[in-house]
Amino acid sequence: MRKTGSIFLFLCFLLCAVGYTAEGSGDLLEQAKKFFSPLPSDMATAQNPITPAKVRLGKILFYECRISVDGTVSCSKCHPFSLYATDGLRKSIGNNCRPNPRKAPTLFNAAAQLSAPWIGNRKDVEDQAKQALVGPPSFGMPSYESVEKKLIELGYSPLFKDAFPNDGKPVSADNFAKAVGAFERTLVTPAPLDDFLKGEKTALTEAEQKGLKLFIDTGCVACHSGAYIGGQAYRKFGIFEPYWKYTKSDKIDDGRYAVTKDEADKYIFKVPVLRNVAKVPPYFHDGSVDKLQDVVVIMAKIQLGKDLDRLTVDNIVTFLDSLTGKIPEDLIKVPLLP
Amino acid sequence: MRKTGSIFLFLCFLLCAVGYTAEGSGDLLEQAKKFFSPLPSDMATAQNPITPAKVRLGKILFYECRISVDGTVSCSKCHPFSLYATDGLRKSIGNNCRPNPRKAPTLFNAAAQLSAPWIGNRKDVEDQAKQALVGPPSFGMPSYESVEKKLIELGYSPLFKDAFPNDGKPVSADNFAKAVGAFERTLVTPAPLDDFLKGEKTALTEAEQKGLKLFIDTGCVACHSGAYIGGQAYRKFGIFEPYWKYTKSDKIDDGRYAVTKDEADKYIFKVPVLRNVAKVPPYFHDGSVDKLQDVVVIMAKIQLGKDLDRLTVDNIVTFLDSLTGKIPEDLIKVPLLP
Repeated sequence: MRKTGSIFLFLCFLLCAVGYTAEGSGDLLEQAKKFFSPLPSDMATAQNPITPAKVRLGKILFYECRISVDGTVSCSKCHPFSLYATDGLRKSIGNNCRPNPRKAPTLFNAAAQLSAPWIGNRKDVEDQAKQALVGPPSFGMPSYESVEKKLIELGYSPLFKDAFPNDGKPVSADNFAKAVGAFERTLVTPAPLDDFLKGEKTALTEAEQKGLKLFIDTGCVACHSGAYIGGQAYRKFGIFEPYWKYTKSDKIDDGRYAVTKDEADKYIFKVPVLRNVAKVPPYFHDGSVDKLQDVVVIMAKIQLGKDLDRLTVDNIVTFLDSLTGKIPEDLIKVPLLP
Repeated sequence: MRKTGSIFLFLCFLLCAVGYTAEGSGDLLEQAKKFFSPLPSDMATAQNPITPAKVRLGKILFYECRISVDGTVSCSKCHPFSLYATDGLRKSIGNNCRPNPRKAPTLFNAAAQLSAPWIGNRKDVEDQAKQALVGPPSFGMPSYESVEKKLIELGYSPLFKDAFPNDGKPVSADNFAKAVGAFERTLVTPAPLDDFLKGEKTALTEAEQKGLKLFIDTGCVACHSGAYIGGQAYRKFGIFEPYWKYTKSDKIDDGRYAVTKDEADKYIFKVPVLRNVAKVPPYFHDGSVDKLQDVVVIMAKIQLGKDLDRLTVDNIVTFLDSLTGKIPEDLIKVPLLP
């Protein structure tokens, strides 16, 4: 009798637990849907529609290093897909060992942000791609004409003609930018969160759901929301305390002030996209923090004025880990250059 | 009657031509088989047998830049597959912008050579991979121990355990070398010549066959023969005249003398593999010549004492073009790093 009672109690407990979890997921799903949405299949725009020929060319150009002043810089140099489209460095290294002012952000799920890259000094990925060609710490070419000349010498004319059939002068820096941009607009990496948001409640483990709930309740979603979990707004880095008090920054970066010269824009940066965040250390605009755990502690402290306990931090990191997406097979194939 | 006669004559001509070509190919095939053999399916050795786990690890390590002193150097930096496993530079650039002494040779079809890389200062690809880790102009790490520590930190232990299941200390520089070497020993790129050598006479076009015949008859096969069309011997570069008289070399390279300190080894280099030669400019150990046409002229002049006419040069280049191989699908997939 006692044994039967125990089994009965255990079954009751089990049913309650299952009921709780299911209902919990249901609530959480509704709550999550208020802040997040699933990734789209691409990030195309009306200004730069995606065509197969343009994406094919863009992918090839992404790996083309011979159009940099010393022959060593391509888009893939600072955004290798082996490291989730960033390079693992605090600050990327361009031609002739020139350091870039900030860390290379991942290009996965990046093209739909309000601007590029950290301080919005580039309008979009196309603008970034074009200006990189003549940027002193990136490709470092003397002029757009010199890039165009080199592209023609390398045999790119037929590929540009295919990609821009109605253009009288297909080989141009503008079309380089459009092709690379079109390719970048295909770089989406769906993660379990997307399945969860579409209603598949088991797509996230219980621990990940717990982390998601804490991510929402702690207030991280105030900035990190939407399909990309960031990327849609500028925010001051260090609201409660200066960021450099907690990071290992080698210097203070004025942030968006460099673009606007408006005092109010000091220490303002674009909110980074958190998709694949576990795979793209070191963190922040200056790569000054190595571990995601530390990032969560610092962000809660200086953005939200909260001291998180270790367990909460670990739970949030578990959720952030689950934002690591699947890289489509086709994306990881290296193209052969002409 | 006149028309019938013409047709008859034309048919006779056609039959003779076909007969000639077929017999010509037949002769050429027999002749070619004396000098060349088809590529094997891999370049495994008894010292470093290929296993799937070892190749998988080797491929990942091939892209690993975080084990270099400044985080920018991986095997793929100087041997990107987008440029047929070389980098398009006269001299490769290693960590902190340090120039390497010579051009990066392609790694495709390279692992079966008598030594590595240009002057045989490395025993084989495994030796090259290992020494590169601490080589000042390549990875530049302070010691093998520092590499091993970093590999463990990065989470490589399970991958090394899989690849070297019977090794008490799987994460080691020696096993790094074996894994990368095993991967490199899979880098074979079969070309139309291989089908031709196996008896498929139409695998090479008539123009390519003409070039092949000229390549043989001119005497290029004295050095460039075997499955790899080179890579099996050391030879003086500049037998009839000094090489620097014809190249745009910035300095005179003593060649193998640097290894042996034997005066007889001055200006002696390993005969390079010619597979994919059309895809791997600039040419020679110092990348001092840009065009394959010029290379053929120079080689005939200074190695064979011959002045080739333009048509012969073009025909030989047509043959060399046909040595561009097919890169297996699997090879061009970039692995995601741990």
